[in-house]
Amino acid sequence: MSDTRDQILEQIKVQGDLVRQLKAAKESKEKTAPSGGGRSSSAQVPAQQPQQQQQQQHEKQQQQQEQEQLQQIDEEVSRLLALKAKLGGDATPANQKFTLKTPKGTRDYGPQQMTLRQGVLDKIVQVFKRHGGEAIDTPVFELKEVLTGKYGEDSKLIYDLKDQGGEILSMRYDLTVPLARYLAMNKISSIKRYHIAKVYRRDNPAMTKGRYREFYQCDFDIAGTYDPMLADAECVKIVAEILDTLDIGDYVIKLNHRQLLDGMFEACGVPADNFRAICSAVDKLDKSPWEDVRKEMVEEKGLDEAAADRIGEYVRLSGGTELVEQLLADAKLKAVPNAVKGLEGMQLLLKYCSIFGLEKRVSFDLSLARGLDYYTGVIYEGVLKGESASVATTPVKTSRQNGDQSNEPATVGSVAGGGRYDNLVGMFDPRGKAVPCVGVSIGVERIFSVLEARAAAGGQKLRTSDVEAYVASAHKGLHEQRLKVLNQLWDAGIKAEHSYKLNPKLLVQLQHCEEHQIPLVVVLGDAELAQGLVKLREVTTRQETNVKLEDLSAEIRRRLHSAA
Amino acid sequence: MSDTRDQILEQIKVQGDLVRQLKAAKESKEKTAPSGGGRSSSAQVPAQQPQQQQQQQHEKQQQQQEQEQLQQIDEEVSRLLALKAKLGGDATPANQKFTLKTPKGTRDYGPQQMTLRQGVLDKIVQVFKRHGGEAIDTPVFELKEVLTGKYGEDSKLIYDLKDQGGEILSMRYDLTVPLARYLAMNKISSIKRYHIAKVYRRDNPAMTKGRYREFYQCDFDIAGTYDPMLADAECVKIVAEILDTLDIGDYVIKLNHRQLLDGMFEACGVPADNFRAICSAVDKLDKSPWEDVRKEMVEEKGLDEAAADRIGEYVRLSGGTELVEQLLADAKLKAVPNAVKGLEGMQLLLKYCSIFGLEKRVSFDLSLARGLDYYTGVIYEGVLKGESASVATTPVKTSRQNGDQSNEPATVGSVAGGGRYDNLVGMFDPRGKAVPCVGVSIGVERIFSVLEARAAAGGQKLRTSDVEAYVASAHKGLHEQRLKVLNQLWDAGIKAEHSYKLNPKLLVQLQHCEEHQIPLVVVLGDAELAQGLVKLREVTTRQETNVKLEDLSAEIRRRLHSAA
Repeated sequence: MSDTRDQILEQIKVQGDLVRQLKAAKESKEKTAPSGGGRSSSAQVPAQQPQQQQQQQHEKQQQQQEQEQLQQIDEEVSRLLALKAKLGGDATPANQKFTLKTPKGTRDYGPQQMTLRQGVLDKIVQVFKRHGGEAIDTPVFELKEVLTGKYGEDSKLIYDLKDQGGEILSMRYDLTVPLARYLAMNKISSIKRYHIAKVYRRDNPAMTKGRYREFYQCDFDIAGTYDPMLADAECVKIVAEILDTLDIGDYVIKLNHRQLLDGMFEACGVPADNFRAICSAVDKLDKSPWEDVRKEMVEEKGLDEAAADRIGEYVRLSGGTELVEQLLADAKLKAVPNAVKGLEGMQLLLKYCSIFGLEKRVSFDLSLARGLDYYTGVIYEGVLKGESASVATTPVKTSRQNGDQSNEPATVGSVAGGGRYDNLVGMFDPRGKAVPCVGVSIGVERIFSVLEARAAAGGQKLRTSDVEAYVASAHKGLHEQRLKVLNQLWDAGIKAEHSYKLNPKLLVQLQHCEEHQIPLVVVLGDAELAQGLVKLREVTTRQETNVKLEDLSAEIRRRLHSAA
Repeated sequence: MSDTRDQILEQIKVQGDLVRQLKAAKESKEKTAPSGGGRSSSAQVPAQQPQQQQQQQHEKQQQQQEQEQLQQIDEEVSRLLALKAKLGGDATPANQKFTLKTPKGTRDYGPQQMTLRQGVLDKIVQVFKRHGGEAIDTPVFELKEVLTGKYGEDSKLIYDLKDQGGEILSMRYDLTVPLARYLAMNKISSIKRYHIAKVYRRDNPAMTKGRYREFYQCDFDIAGTYDPMLADAECVKIVAEILDTLDIGDYVIKLNHRQLLDGMFEACGVPADNFRAICSAVDKLDKSPWEDVRKEMVEEKGLDEAAADRIGEYVRLSGGTELVEQLLADAKLKAVPNAVKGLEGMQLLLKYCSIFGLEKRVSFDLSLARGLDYYTGVIYEGVLKGESASVATTPVKTSRQNGDQSNEPATVGSVAGGGRYDNLVGMFDPRGKAVPCVGVSIGVERIFSVLEARAAAGGQKLRTSDVEAYVASAHKGLHEQRLKVLNQLWDAGIKAEHSYKLNPKLLVQLQHCEEHQIPLVVVLGDAELAQGLVKLREVTTRQETNVKLEDLSAEIRRRLHSAA
């Protein structure tokens, strides 16, 4: 084969067009298909409509056609990738217009945003440390196999690295699976750790609402074999402390229990092999009305209508201990051991939460399901009550086409989530040794968005540097003296800067200090220097005092302390 | 095509074997080839040996054969990738043994390492802030085009993300190019920013020496149009302050100037289009003897032997202002404007460094070249003098087969590096508007390694959590009281924890406190609680005092303050 680069580029173009045509054809067919509606990925498997037997034959044919179509697309995509591979990584035609941007769904943080962000993270770390958390960090990517089979449907959102020879790697999708891998690999059976780092999801970004493809998570997890609900309740307490200290408005922490959900499904007549699918439908209740969720259960997931209606009765319930009592007395649930165990767990959790003063903050909510497969016990979600509307500008329902299977807050007001996952570490241990874990993840991007919107609305401008003293020249020819004074201040640990010009204008230097809210200016002039003096000027009052050069650092320190 | 998954897996295996065979054949041939020695990637282009004309015909044939071989390998790799693509991302045979590890060249940081690391980073940030730095952050990946053409030979070390549809992305290779992109994109013409984040290089890791594929960089850069050397000298000062505050042993900051290097090459008779190649050879002097570098210049880069010898005279020189004077008087250099400008720049830089008290810390060193293409003025490198031998266990020369073209410290003792790059931002600006920049990058992984080795040698164990008070039960049945007391302490901002067991043994609880260096224990017992009292125990002295429950937080705070 001796294709030139240009020939290959041409072939890529042709092949790319073909792939796009095939995909477009498939999509337009789906839109006109009788079932499946506008849903994207689940439309590949046509919905079952048990009532309409006459349609089944037609659907089967259609299904087969779709399968063939999919296979053809896959083949042509393979050819396209092979062509691109021939170019050796650089698949961009040389004449392509180069757009200056960050990758889709990502953003830079400028100094203003970093200052706000650092303030939020510091407060969160303070809470984590108050509860005895130790920090760990893991690589930003993992062997792909580590992530495989942990995220259900959402595995398709995982970023893969290119196979450049060597290991096959993927970007971390959350901080929970890397923690489990870390614990199993190092045979750690108990730890209370926090981890603040970026995670990656190839999702449809909704950046105005704080949903990105690269975003920070702040996780706190308690691993170890302990008595029921003691660690779980502390995680709820941590969420409350963080939301209180950040002061981002009124919130509620919704609580539920996976065992209770399973027990409830059993009591309602859901077949055991359909629990997870029905659970994932329930998970959508925070953004879709019950009618839509019921339709998904019945039409897409083949659930009996009566069973769906029974579920509908339960999932509208929320409350406190009185609701637990009521459900413990419920004839259908009483008969299912899982449901009783789940309810007893909830009872204990609510009791501990009440000791922690959280009675008014928590709500036992049967509609809370959370999508991730790995939860095995308590699940929770912290939701902002009020401020959401001011940040979200588009309707919630259209923001995410696929089921929310993620740790990331998906409802507009959701800012924290977590739960118990007792079997995840065992999936990594060669002998399957389990390490029970419970944890919580703070959705800080959402919190940043709320606080940024608030700061913007208030016209607030944060100081982005901590400079305490600016060293200025009153006239020309003083740059070496400036450097000497700066050196003295730096060596004394004072945060100081100057113009990097030889002969800056005094007015420009003073304006810089006012703009950047620098409290003190050291003004150098030959007259004062001749007497071993400098002028020390307070920026806000514009008062100036002569200070001996040898006392300067001490005097600056004194002024800063008295101002603070 | 209707291959089953198993058939495709079999095809992948066969194709994979073929690729491996081809690669092995090519490698074994290279080893026996007359030229090229043991160098890996540069062996693809046989070395030119101008003295041996009779070999040229043979070499041409060999070169052609190699090209064909490379092409064949590329094709078969393409086929392999296409086969893998068919599997839809999951290319791992189901029965493959799963190894629990982090990706090659990466590591986890456990609590001990994080504590050490956080201490180092905090000190570095303190210095950055002392000089008025503002923080920014950028995404961990960039559009591939942003990185293209910035790193010379080392572009091959860039991690690419898989083409999953959408943009073509690569992991950031340093923090400098993302800064330049950020400045151009936001039309920022002056900033003093720091950025602490991980960067990614598919290099041969040497983890005992602190060289990883994922590693932290701590960068400080000053962007803006300023008077000569003022910002440059401040960067040198920052390196010195950081190395002083970290107290990792004696060091020297080597200084040189790209313009002087170019002028020197011109004066020695190097053709202008060979400057960068010869510069990259000079860059290897920190780990290879002059003889090897000379050989590379003459044999691989076709330089005239006399010119190489003239370069050899210069690059062995190092010193201070007296060396600048000497070179300004050098007949050959005096005649080259670039050399004179570079020397005048060095003179000014050394003067400012001396004002900053760095006379004994800096060394003007003509062998310092730094590999990256984008430097245009001053270049510097901070090198540890002593401790290197205790950490590096393998000889330096074998550690890196390819030329060091990176920002990362490559010599064993190199812990900081940087320089001036006045044209990089302009490469991103649509109208080519330049923003002059100078900056420095601290090689913290290397510093971590030195400090970790030192801590390990001293048997030092850092506290990894900040818990101030542990709440213990003296006997059974007190867990709810424990939660109440904990809640009181947390609400008072005291860092507190307890056993997550209902009825832990007192001895186990006290041992936990001793192991984890927790200073205070609150011991609960029915007898004391009945009187509204608890025991407060100092862990080191084992002294116990009864304290009123309502005074507990205040008393703990008092004890902590007096201990501190």
